[in-house]
Amino acid sequence: MTRYKLTIEYDGRPFVGFQRQDNGPSVQAELERAIHAYSGEDVQVICSGRTDAGVHARGQVVHVDLERGDTAQTVMNAANAHLREVPVSVLNAVEVGEDFHARFSAIGRRYMYRIVNRRAPLTFDKGLAWWVPVPLDAERMHDAAQVLVGRHDFTTFRHVHCQSNSPVKTLDVLRVERLGEDIYIHAAARSFLHHQVRSMVGCLKLVGEDKWSKADLKAALEAHDRAALGLNAPPDGLYFMQALYEGDIGWDKS
Amino acid sequence: MTRYKLTIEYDGRPFVGFQRQDNGPSVQAELERAIHAYSGEDVQVICSGRTDAGVHARGQVVHVDLERGDTAQTVMNAANAHLREVPVSVLNAVEVGEDFHARFSAIGRRYMYRIVNRRAPLTFDKGLAWWVPVPLDAERMHDAAQVLVGRHDFTTFRHVHCQSNSPVKTLDVLRVERLGEDIYIHAAARSFLHHQVRSMVGCLKLVGEDKWSKADLKAALEAHDRAALGLNAPPDGLYFMQALYEGDIGWDKS
Repeated sequence: MTRYKLTIEYDGRPFVGFQRQDNGPSVQAELERAIHAYSGEDVQVICSGRTDAGVHARGQVVHVDLERGDTAQTVMNAANAHLREVPVSVLNAVEVGEDFHARFSAIGRRYMYRIVNRRAPLTFDKGLAWWVPVPLDAERMHDAAQVLVGRHDFTTFRHVHCQSNSPVKTLDVLRVERLGEDIYIHAAARSFLHHQVRSMVGCLKLVGEDKWSKADLKAALEAHDRAALGLNAPPDGLYFMQALYEGDIGWDKS
Repeated sequence: MTRYKLTIEYDGRPFVGFQRQDNGPSVQAELERAIHAYSGEDVQVICSGRTDAGVHARGQVVHVDLERGDTAQTVMNAANAHLREVPVSVLNAVEVGEDFHARFSAIGRRYMYRIVNRRAPLTFDKGLAWWVPVPLDAERMHDAAQVLVGRHDFTTFRHVHCQSNSPVKTLDVLRVERLGEDIYIHAAARSFLHHQVRSMVGCLKLVGEDKWSKADLKAALEAHDRAALGLNAPPDGLYFMQALYEGDIGWDKS
């Protein structure tokens, strides 16, 4: 048996999420179908972090075990050949030891959230970004965001069905930057609560349009109460960018 | 009567092209429908440069006349409200004099062609870029491209049905640059022949993979013969970026 670590990109629009579910197509089911189609083996694909319906990935990491001893390059090319009809693509593949686990071995996750801040409705980016037509002050958003960085009880920013044992997480990075009409929000941590990034982005949008102050954001955090959440951002703009493992150099720049 | 200059963005994937045709949806028909829906007026939308089926625009310019004396802002917002269901969006609108003509007043056009140069098939960018899995040398492409810059007979790079009076055009800019796995080709001229950008890009791809030399490209140009064309690039990667008029500052940077 050989274990492979695959880096995956997907457009989340047609999917019910990463995880296999009864109510529609999932990224996991497509990957397992493609690998089975090439190898004949029934496999289970394990990811570093599940994504919700409509959420995208540019660097999801999964692992999968195969009995046949193909090179990682062969696995990648064969899987991609069977993924042609769906917006899922294997970007990279390497062989790893049996102690590697996409989820449990990960020591960091990085997400990016993209807002398009302009009057004109979206064309190319429908479902791929959050369209916000009111002007947002990205510097003000970045400044306020720093109250969320560090070790906190993030109950306010947690989905009611979140399965994490504890609401306490350490947020390493929350950086907001404007590039033309795009606003990018970068978030990195060892792990996140369910909906944490979208909930933080929703509140930062309120800060950006001057409905909330930095103090309001701090008060929401310290309320430790989901009812204190100002706004949850839609899945459209959320991208799983990278999972980090022991031995990796660090965060990519993109 | 008031004349308006509108700057338009569209995803060309669902359209038979800019121009109204019997065989499917066009950008022109959608714009005329949206403006009629708001104003009740039967209008004709004139563009600065027609685009083919599957070709996109980030800065197409059109003009349109309306009897009612609304502000340009009102025209833009009303048109966008009636364009919600299609990937066409009005980015900007200004009132212009009756001597302004989107096509005949234009003194420059700028296109961008995007290649995604990677092994993995496309996900987000299917139909929005040309997927080229073999490695391309962008510097080699840029160097060779310079033989096409200047005043030449571009018959080799011209569609057989091109309606231009003369095959002689002056190409002002042909710049190739790599950003990560993306290769961007920027082309600017007073005007282009039909298929000229896609034909130039197709040949530059042959140069990038070392199938053609700079001398081969020069020989193709000097053949003045469509049969000497190496390859025509697909519409997927082509974007109409900007039309330039007297009084404009110059080319945008994007």
